Amino acid sequence: MTTQASSSTIRKTLNFNAGPAALPTSVLRIAETEFLNYNKTGVSVMELSHRSKDFESIIFTAIKDLRELMDIPAEYEVLFMHGGGTGQFAAVPMNLLRGEKKASYVITGSWSAAAAEEAKKYVDDIEIAAHTGPSFTSLPSEWKVSADSAYIHYCHNETVNGNQYHNILEIASKYPTIPLVADMSSSFLSEPVDVRRFGCIYAGAQKNVGPAGVTIVIVRKDLLGNPAKFTPTILNYTITAAKESMYNTPPTYPIYITSLVLKWIKQQSLQHLSNVNKEKAQILYDYIDQSNGFYEAKIEPDARSRMNVVFLLKSEELTKTFVKEAEKHHIMGIAGHRSVGGCRASIYNAVPLEHVRELIQFMKEFATAHS
Amino acid sequence: MTTQASSSTIRKTLNFNAGPAALPTSVLRIAETEFLNYNKTGVSVMELSHRSKDFESIIFTAIKDLRELMDIPAEYEVLFMHGGGTGQFAAVPMNLLRGEKKASYVITGSWSAAAAEEAKKYVDDIEIAAHTGPSFTSLPSEWKVSADSAYIHYCHNETVNGNQYHNILEIASKYPTIPLVADMSSSFLSEPVDVRRFGCIYAGAQKNVGPAGVTIVIVRKDLLGNPAKFTPTILNYTITAAKESMYNTPPTYPIYITSLVLKWIKQQSLQHLSNVNKEKAQILYDYIDQSNGFYEAKIEPDARSRMNVVFLLKSEELTKTFVKEAEKHHIMGIAGHRSVGGCRASIYNAVPLEHVRELIQFMKEFATAHS
Repeated sequence: MTTQASSSTIRKTLNFNAGPAALPTSVLRIAETEFLNYNKTGVSVMELSHRSKDFESIIFTAIKDLRELMDIPAEYEVLFMHGGGTGQFAAVPMNLLRGEKKASYVITGSWSAAAAEEAKKYVDDIEIAAHTGPSFTSLPSEWKVSADSAYIHYCHNETVNGNQYHNILEIASKYPTIPLVADMSSSFLSEPVDVRRFGCIYAGAQKNVGPAGVTIVIVRKDLLGNPAKFTPTILNYTITAAKESMYNTPPTYPIYITSLVLKWIKQQSLQHLSNVNKEKAQILYDYIDQSNGFYEAKIEPDARSRMNVVFLLKSEELTKTFVKEAEKHHIMGIAGHRSVGGCRASIYNAVPLEHVRELIQFMKEFATAHS
Repeated sequence: MTTQASSSTIRKTLNFNAGPAALPTSVLRIAETEFLNYNKTGVSVMELSHRSKDFESIIFTAIKDLRELMDIPAEYEVLFMHGGGTGQFAAVPMNLLRGEKKASYVITGSWSAAAAEEAKKYVDDIEIAAHTGPSFTSLPSEWKVSADSAYIHYCHNETVNGNQYHNILEIASKYPTIPLVADMSSSFLSEPVDVRRFGCIYAGAQKNVGPAGVTIVIVRKDLLGNPAKFTPTILNYTITAAKESMYNTPPTYPIYITSLVLKWIKQQSLQHLSNVNKEKAQILYDYIDQSNGFYEAKIEPDARSRMNVVFLLKSEELTKTFVKEAEKHHIMGIAGHRSVGGCRASIYNAVPLEHVRELIQFMKEFATAHS
């Protein structure tokens, strides 16, 4: 079975935004139906107290569903936090350095570079375990990591550059005693992951699992309890865990939408979703590779992102024309990130296989017209 | 004219939640109508890139409307941030201490106490300018503030305790050279405020102007440029200002709802809304004071909050019965904060006068039945 959704849940606009991104149509329809009257309360979810039974049921069910979907063991906390991935770039060293001086950063693109830059404020000795810039077209399978490093931070999928680690556990197995910290913002819940192999996984929700405004952190409990003294409470894992993600008012509506997306993933199974994601990426890269150079994907095949397919056309002018024509065909968000140019199709969980097929069809027609 | 809204925009559930709280019905109806298809884009606001023209128009119009509503001069930045009021408890000292050692805190309830507690992480010398605990039933009009204090922080309206400063400019005029920093989370845009008299005003949106997840900061530009080195980027005013509140992905949907609430306030004028707010508080306190002690408001008359009307019944048992009976009458969120007990009716901007009248009617009937 390759169809991800029935035709009735497929909308006309093809949304390839990099984040905030497409959400499942069926999820939005549920939210629309109960928009003004949630669970017979007579009010919107946005108007519920975060201390109400209705909202507590939303957030605790979401955490339970996430634990089930990712098979998260009891030794891990699941936190809903504020501030996005950028907030976590500060939170990780503040919480996980635990009095040590050194932490290792693997630099494979814009986001991991930004994480290391933010960490400099808090870590005396940043060890660059690998750096594949400026092109970031390949991913290193050898890292240089010292034994006294408090943790290794890497980005599982680089949204801007379009690369993704597919052999991370193999690499990480060389450093079994050092906690592995993964920025999974743009690949979270797009495929099964063995949580037990990580010290911490974090992700902004706005790619694969929800709207902007909520950030998910999965962290091993034994790493908690020793945050830096200047850690703001909203970025403190230990306090957030003790207060069940409600030390202060959480972003209730983004959490609610996320809870619906988690249910949607459960309905079809993560494995099925992962298979569809693989197929979406496969057919798109296959077409690009077979386009006789009209389109080009520069990332090496074994490092290609299944979420963000970055490709180039032959000139800036042709790229501009492509993006404009695409817009006329209801194709949204296809321009590449301003820092790297070119084009990018972000094909997260909620993008149906059918939309990727339509994109390829458009690309074919465009190539024919402009060859 | 005392009616705040036509009957068609009044819903059955009386929502007195302290925050997240009631939103204007007409705002929710607009959001419901365009939920799946915003401005003919074919997608939800949640699915728009924050870099899209449509979302930029939402956030920049919101900032423009807020500037207009509050008459915010050009010397001030308006920022949309992550992390709620609690995030600001850290952000204020990190950004506004500017290398100084001392800051003054006025403690008039739970929230200002929490702000001072968080600030201890960053400020060597916290000066308690006043402390009215443990009862917090009055507000000091004399503060003890040293000339070398970097700023004075106070809470304009204490949500939990139910007090509100009504003569703040008079008090602040004694310290004209020290920036006044106001936590206005629960009174923001409920009445006109002279922004020019403040160094910084901040507010979580989830009381008077929007859903949970977005925090508004108004800060004098000359106070920027010297944040503490360990300030996380997401809490850095200078960077947030330079990047027009989009250094990282902002909480787009909460900002969108806030933008609609700002338009709703503009439609009726802030002065009109303020008049209605005054009337709502007046009739509720009047009834409580005239209830022959069945209900009691302990806050001194000149310190009473117009937003959070805190009142007691004679026993805990009677209070429990009251809250249960209220629920049966579709009255939501009337229980007091767990730290102070009793009852609390939060009557923010979006709570119609009619709902306050209905609450009073219920209170009358309950008093008659239980006297």
